[in-house]
Amino acid sequence: MQINSLPISFASDNHAGIHPDIMQALQAANSGYALAYGKDVITKEARTICKELFGECEVFFVLTGTAANTLALSTMLQPYQAVIAPETAHINTFECGATEKFVGSKILTVPSSDGKITIDQIKHHLRTVGSIHHAKPRVVSITQATEYGTVYTPQELKEICNFAHEQNLLVHMDGNRLYNAAAYLGVSLKALTRDVGVDVLSLGGAKNGLMCGEAVIFFDPGLAAYFENRQQQAMQLCSKMRFVAVQLGTLLSNNLWLRNAQHANNMAQMLADGLAKIPAIKITQKVQANAVFVTMPAHLIKPLQQKFHFYMWNEQKSEVRLMTSWATNEKDVQEFLHEASK
Amino acid sequence: MQINSLPISFASDNHAGIHPDIMQALQAANSGYALAYGKDVITKEARTICKELFGECEVFFVLTGTAANTLALSTMLQPYQAVIAPETAHINTFECGATEKFVGSKILTVPSSDGKITIDQIKHHLRTVGSIHHAKPRVVSITQATEYGTVYTPQELKEICNFAHEQNLLVHMDGNRLYNAAAYLGVSLKALTRDVGVDVLSLGGAKNGLMCGEAVIFFDPGLAAYFENRQQQAMQLCSKMRFVAVQLGTLLSNNLWLRNAQHANNMAQMLADGLAKIPAIKITQKVQANAVFVTMPAHLIKPLQQKFHFYMWNEQKSEVRLMTSWATNEKDVQEFLHEASK
Amino acid sequence: MQINSLPISFASDNHAGIHPDIMQALQAANSGYALAYGKDVITKEARTICKELFGECEVFFVLTGTAANTLALSTMLQPYQAVIAPETAHINTFECGATEKFVGSKILTVPSSDGKITIDQIKHHLRTVGSIHHAKPRVVSITQATEYGTVYTPQELKEICNFAHEQNLLVHMDGNRLYNAAAYLGVSLKALTRDVGVDVLSLGGAKNGLMCGEAVIFFDPGLAAYFENRQQQAMQLCSKMRFVAVQLGTLLSNNLWLRNAQHANNMAQMLADGLAKIPAIKITQKVQANAVFVTMPAHLIKPLQQKFHFYMWNEQKSEVRLMTSWATNEKDVQEFLHEASK
Amino acid sequence: MQINSLPISFASDNHAGIHPDIMQALQAANSGYALAYGKDVITKEARTICKELFGECEVFFVLTGTAANTLALSTMLQPYQAVIAPETAHINTFECGATEKFVGSKILTVPSSDGKITIDQIKHHLRTVGSIHHAKPRVVSITQATEYGTVYTPQELKEICNFAHEQNLLVHMDGNRLYNAAAYLGVSLKALTRDVGVDVLSLGGAKNGLMCGEAVIFFDPGLAAYFENRQQQAMQLCSKMRFVAVQLGTLLSNNLWLRNAQHANNMAQMLADGLAKIPAIKITQKVQANAVFVTMPAHLIKPLQQKFHFYMWNEQKSEVRLMTSWATNEKDVQEFLHEASK
Repeated sequence: MQINSLPISFASDNHAGIHPDIMQALQAANSGYALAYGKDVITKEARTICKELFGECEVFFVLTGTAANTLALSTMLQPYQAVIAPETAHINTFECGATEKFVGSKILTVPSSDGKITIDQIKHHLRTVGSIHHAKPRVVSITQATEYGTVYTPQELKEICNFAHEQNLLVHMDGNRLYNAAAYLGVSLKALTRDVGVDVLSLGGAKNGLMCGEAVIFFDPGLAAYFENRQQQAMQLCSKMRFVAVQLGTLLSNNLWLRNAQHANNMAQMLADGLAKIPAIKITQKVQANAVFVTMPAHLIKPLQQKFHFYMWNEQKSEVRLMTSWATNEKDVQEFLHEASK
Repeated sequence: MQINSLPISFASDNHAGIHPDIMQALQAANSGYALAYGKDVITKEARTICKELFGECEVFFVLTGTAANTLALSTMLQPYQAVIAPETAHINTFECGATEKFVGSKILTVPSSDGKITIDQIKHHLRTVGSIHHAKPRVVSITQATEYGTVYTPQELKEICNFAHEQNLLVHMDGNRLYNAAAYLGVSLKALTRDVGVDVLSLGGAKNGLMCGEAVIFFDPGLAAYFENRQQQAMQLCSKMRFVAVQLGTLLSNNLWLRNAQHANNMAQMLADGLAKIPAIKITQKVQANAVFVTMPAHLIKPLQQKFHFYMWNEQKSEVRLMTSWATNEKDVQEFLHEASK
Repeated sequence: MQINSLPISFASDNHAGIHPDIMQALQAANSGYALAYGKDVITKEARTICKELFGECEVFFVLTGTAANTLALSTMLQPYQAVIAPETAHINTFECGATEKFVGSKILTVPSSDGKITIDQIKHHLRTVGSIHHAKPRVVSITQATEYGTVYTPQELKEICNFAHEQNLLVHMDGNRLYNAAAYLGVSLKALTRDVGVDVLSLGGAKNGLMCGEAVIFFDPGLAAYFENRQQQAMQLCSKMRFVAVQLGTLLSNNLWLRNAQHANNMAQMLADGLAKIPAIKITQKVQANAVFVTMPAHLIKPLQQKFHFYMWNEQKSEVRLMTSWATNEKDVQEFLHEASK
Repeated sequence: MQINSLPISFASDNHAGIHPDIMQALQAANSGYALAYGKDVITKEARTICKELFGECEVFFVLTGTAANTLALSTMLQPYQAVIAPETAHINTFECGATEKFVGSKILTVPSSDGKITIDQIKHHLRTVGSIHHAKPRVVSITQATEYGTVYTPQELKEICNFAHEQNLLVHMDGNRLYNAAAYLGVSLKALTRDVGVDVLSLGGAKNGLMCGEAVIFFDPGLAAYFENRQQQAMQLCSKMRFVAVQLGTLLSNNLWLRNAQHANNMAQMLADGLAKIPAIKITQKVQANAVFVTMPAHLIKPLQQKFHFYMWNEQKSEVRLMTSWATNEKDVQEFLHEASK
């Protein structure tokens, strides 16, 4: 088949390919027969690697980020219960109603300008907690790093989790870009999840160098009961699971996750630093993970889009989103800055 | 990560790895940036390849066989409608209720000793078609090759499809092992689907040499409307879709699908021929695709399972299922026969 | 509005109107204001009456029999779990897939010629209990009296419940015609439910003289948590609940339930006794509750249907179903017998 | 059973009982046998009465307002589509996620201070209409009269419907209190629904004097296909339907709907006029239908709640909601005003 690639892309960390170490691991795993559906030794080993990084937990591998979020929530919610999330949350915007359809639950949103939620905003939705007419708040879902490239501090996370638990709420973390948050903060993955009180984590993969593969990690093992049956019913129990597990196992070994995320963050920082010097451009969100949001005049955007792929985020504000990844080249960043400053 | 493989497996065509040509295609596709979620050129090309083989159709790539079946049915059924299928159908047994959960529809089953359904059996469920109390039959689902390794002839398929359409029913084909059926019959994939009147096809991948990747193919394009939104809501819209599409595109190019399926069928035939000569063993289903069902005495099974991996199918009858795949070695078959005849 | 009633009906116990005592109770309840959604004193009192009859339990009132069954099951099942039931069960036939749609669960059926299920049949579906691919059996649902007018003895019920509990299964009883079973057996409602080990009961109303109103009764109070939220989400939380509750409270007071059911049973018995004497007619099910199933030649059916309303049950066998109710007149039965013996 | 009623209630139009004419109709309908599930002559006649008032349409009777809304939406939406509604809409707040659970669809909300939605607000959610990641807007749902007692003019409705249809959106009207809106505007029910372009109407009943019973009315008959199967699957196909239909048929005959609604509106107006004269009290919404929203100091609320039943609407603002109904007495209004002005 013909392979015809895009120009340089700052549009999405999903536009990058597979990291060479992951590709090599796929090849190494392709030897002989293996039990299907996750009963194989590679899956077992990948789980062990997860437990070394995250502490005691239950781990399952699924195929998409939407699946990781939706399946995680399906274990935490009865249909008549609700999840509280910022309106910017991936579960509320980009998942085409997967939570509503598969879990049957309502998402109670709060406005957010930076992708984060506050305790006061959570409280707003607790007014109706005793009502028999209202979907009953049961989970708070937070995204780390957020969809705007911002990062909660461990202290912020701890406060949210503590508050949630006091209110008999569980905490779900959408950790699609957890790696980038940990790299930014210089802490371990465990320090942002288990240690602060997260109950269930959706851990990303594709955005940090995998072909496909995400994990659902339970720090509350009671919620994990019969998860594989849920997976099968959710069409997410991959038959040749070894090839999914080996990707996550490799990403989480030898700090590959950190090197990839650190590189993406560095590229975003370099991009932001350069853009900050261009008077017509204004950075609109803190650059903490691997995203740079900027407003720039339309006359700048058009020619840039001839050479680079990236998306308009907010047409009205002329705001664009620039994403970096493990695959972003310093040279490409410099070229982008050079073009942008023309 | 440590790679520790199984002994020789006749347990499932999912125990085999990735065919070398597919692995090579994955590597070739891993170059530069690509649009995500199926907007890339590789996905486009894989669709073109499908259309060359199947005739005019709409094609979408999903991640598991259960997803291909469930999503196909979700386009054909309203929740208050039902699908008629043999009780042996994968959708009824091995998918943990995915159709019931995601589509909301009932599966109306008929008994089947060989995995096939007859027109008379379909008629049985049409008694209630006018009732407002009963789930309204709307789809017939047939598996080709069946879960028992048997194969419908094109004539049988044509009669079922004609009857279904006369009754205002649509026809879904679970074509997880369609390749093996086509290889057995010596006909094209189109001759078993579009040409006989199938409306929507779930086309397999993993069982014929892929890492992961299946297709949903619509011969009735009206049913395909907004399928990608369905996919996203169903957690089945892979971000780095190029790596799924390239696998299917490669499988369907240069007759790889046929070579793999023919080999698997040949190995099953060789196994069956050998087993037929062993007096204590009785073949219980026609060997047409890549499965061999046999009853054998318990004292034979135990020692065989020391050396080979395979599953008990029916404990009471002492019936086992032996599956072959693109990866099965002639030498392994001979060794199995040698051990079985001891 | 014009009121134009049917001829005498033996077609369904739903064809009868509202018992005069129930109508009187509706009028009595129609005084002044009352809290909505079941917070009123009438609902409270109706619950107390239930508890007096059934022993300690949690009670909720819903609007249809399908709702009582579906909501009961929704508290007992996760979507990836399954309910085992005879194929004749109302939940499997006449509810248009409500369990599949609302609970998301699969119904695993067994053949039944008399509407009953046996322990051996339940066992058949426990083969797959450890599989991650199969919907996991979690509930056994039994109908008492069955859809065929037959009745389980307390001993049979006790054995099924004991077996189920040993296997970590819960027991649901569809008690749409529980009254008729209790009247036939000469035992209390409690003796057929709480005392034998039923976990959740759907208790009928409309078929025994109500306008509308059924109850879901939990002997395992843990399953009842947040039931009103479920009800609201299931569109079953009636605003003017007092008028539903007063009907059930009245039916369960002063043995009205028993008098109505006993009368219906007596009428069925009288009908059966008379029909048994007609050579061309053959009774096909034991007449225990308020149904009489008979085969009769077509030439007898046609003229009878001129004067009486009743349904063909099985066209092929020329089998009809005759139902009696609290409203059936002895005179009408005699007239039916007279016509049938012509 | 003991009947123990509330003090005078301004808490909800659901706290009133059954209007005497409706009770009389129930009794009249309770004569002889009738076909079940809506096949009877009373249901047929009630449909005819609806068509006389609303013009050509398809009509079905259900049991709760939540059911009327949810079932209406289930005919208009595929699960991957969304309904746009004000955040104040009953479907978004008081129905415990019924739309999300039963339809599987997302509700896209806009802020609203008076319960109404504007065309600009609808436009806001059309940004993502071409996205494969976002739930696809397909329906606009408007409540008439709104949950705040405000009323859209026919011109406003026409503009919304025209805009929606231009954008390939359908319009659902939650007409739980449509009667009050029509009474306020002095127009027919048809003038607010069919004539302005509404596609599907949920028409109330209980809040305007019925025991229970609501209608789903299709002006687009294509959407009504197999609605009874949907109803059965949704647990909303009442067996003794005649008693539901006769209530709606009676309400819609002889202008009973109008007399009841006009009375409720008049009582609300009287209440508002009186409260407007009390300096400490501020009316917070236009009083157009049968609701009065006012802020009043806490020291006024407490003693009033000793004598009258009503709900705090917004604790922070010290805002209460006062509802009137067909049953509200002028004397009770005067007494309330007298107490409030102490």
